[in-house]
Amino acid sequence: MSGAPETVELVRAGGPHVAGLMARVEERLREDAAGHGPVLADHAGDTIAAGGKRLRPLLVLLAAGEPRDHDAAETVVRSAAAVELVHSATLVHDDVLDAASLRRGRPTVVARGGRGMATAAGDLLFAQAFAELTGAPAGDRAEAVRILSDACSALARGELLQRADAWDAGIALERYLLRCELKTARLFEAACALGTQAAGEPDLGLDRFGRRIGLAFQLLDDVLDVSGPASRTGKHRGTDLLDGTVTLPFITARERDPWLAALDPRSIATPEAAEDVCERIAATGALDDARTMALALVDEARAELPERLDARRREALELVAGGVVARYA
Amino acid sequence: MSGAPETVELVRAGGPHVAGLMARVEERLREDAAGHGPVLADHAGDTIAAGGKRLRPLLVLLAAGEPRDHDAAETVVRSAAAVELVHSATLVHDDVLDAASLRRGRPTVVARGGRGMATAAGDLLFAQAFAELTGAPAGDRAEAVRILSDACSALARGELLQRADAWDAGIALERYLLRCELKTARLFEAACALGTQAAGEPDLGLDRFGRRIGLAFQLLDDVLDVSGPASRTGKHRGTDLLDGTVTLPFITARERDPWLAALDPRSIATPEAAEDVCERIAATGALDDARTMALALVDEARAELPERLDARRREALELVAGGVVARYA
Repeated sequence: MSGAPETVELVRAGGPHVAGLMARVEERLREDAAGHGPVLADHAGDTIAAGGKRLRPLLVLLAAGEPRDHDAAETVVRSAAAVELVHSATLVHDDVLDAASLRRGRPTVVARGGRGMATAAGDLLFAQAFAELTGAPAGDRAEAVRILSDACSALARGELLQRADAWDAGIALERYLLRCELKTARLFEAACALGTQAAGEPDLGLDRFGRRIGLAFQLLDDVLDVSGPASRTGKHRGTDLLDGTVTLPFITARERDPWLAALDPRSIATPEAAEDVCERIAATGALDDARTMALALVDEARAELPERLDARRREALELVAGGVVARYA
Repeated sequence: MSGAPETVELVRAGGPHVAGLMARVEERLREDAAGHGPVLADHAGDTIAAGGKRLRPLLVLLAAGEPRDHDAAETVVRSAAAVELVHSATLVHDDVLDAASLRRGRPTVVARGGRGMATAAGDLLFAQAFAELTGAPAGDRAEAVRILSDACSALARGELLQRADAWDAGIALERYLLRCELKTARLFEAACALGTQAAGEPDLGLDRFGRRIGLAFQLLDDVLDVSGPASRTGKHRGTDLLDGTVTLPFITARERDPWLAALDPRSIATPEAAEDVCERIAATGALDDARTMALALVDEARAELPERLDARRREALELVAGGVVARYA
């Protein structure tokens, strides 16, 4: 939820202007949901209105710093909304593919409207993201669209990779990391790039910071899927295993436990069986190693923050980096 | 297929430059399919490479006229590719929803790669369409992206409407026409707008021509679904009825035949039953009326061609209008 403690803290750290801009982002997202007729408002609207942590739009705002004028502020707000719309679109499509019934505690679009409705709603959210960018008054709009369409391509390629690799227990670490980069890190990178671009500082160089933070975020997300607890993640442990999605903890654990190395993921048929495999993965120390890798990425991300960054933005972005780690704590 | 007789004739009518530009569009589409790794090349690649009539990219080329320089030519080619990529993306997603096994005589992406692969492949094609536009060297790129994202929004809204209206035999004519406009006509309109925009003539005013041609195209497509023959459409008669998609012939026929008015589309369970309903619809004269409406739209489209249009473009676009009608003959 946008009112989650970590988000509130991050909004405060970004400066007095951030709360106001974030409220405008929420307003635009509500309008995006409501502005295309009751059918969309009923369906995709719920997904974007329900809200997640809003980490991606927040990154846009924090990377942009305090806008120098009205047009810059409007551009930052629209860029932030665009990034969240893309994220929402992928969630809607993912839920179609997983036939998921709940998302953020609410019925998914696919559960309420069916697969057709949900696929079209996701497409519409993608299209609206680009409309947000092109309607912004400042900055190089073509460059902004290029940044976002690159990120969308990456998201789709990551999803393709994940489907291609499904149930393959033997995938290499590099392949897993490439998938995380495509599926997650590139949109974080785009959020930073769109923020600096909207602020008229396209060469500030926050892209690598964003990419590393995104990669760490995905690694920790994959750890959480194995470690639980369900009360924190909102789903039972081992959903990735049940989906055939092989992630870092399992890859590492297979090198240490011959029983896991011999395990065919397809044989994990029930949530209880998945829970047992999660225990076995944890026993190898693979979760600690994955966490260590993620923390190292966060440290690298902090070190990548450019020298010439003003103190306020530096502090806020370092807090975001810390927030990614805190998700795990 | 791009080598279909009507396309060849249209390419010729557009002038000697059109064949060369169309070859470059095909080249770009091949690169778009191949350039994102073997996974996409295997899947979405087939959809775009197999080709349809390429009517939408051809509209871009014909609306643009002969490019005045290298940059304009490159922009026209990329705009044409972008429109076809969007069209391909919607086909891939439609096939997911319909669980279709064949498209243009080849196995669909969803049949070969599964739903996940196909949804992601469609998303990737959407993203690539925007990348094509932003990579073009001439014209107002932000405006081009706005045109295409508006068309994408319309496509998705049309798809949402169609799903919302599924199985509702009582939908009004206006609602049906709105759906056709969103699902089909707006992308034809965008093709014309992108063509004139790439040519540096954004105010030439071919949009309404494009929209009417697109509407006529959809009406005749819906007639073909009822009239057959299967040898021409590549599918048995009445697939729309079996899908719960209520179209113009059925709407009109229900006003004339009480048996059809009382018919619940859900009760049409087999291709044979659908065939019988098609016969009954044809017997009311509803197909002739739908054709008449489509032909009137084509006439209106021709009349909408602006006065100041050069003779070559006028002739080529009138041939396109005729080609839409010829589809039915």
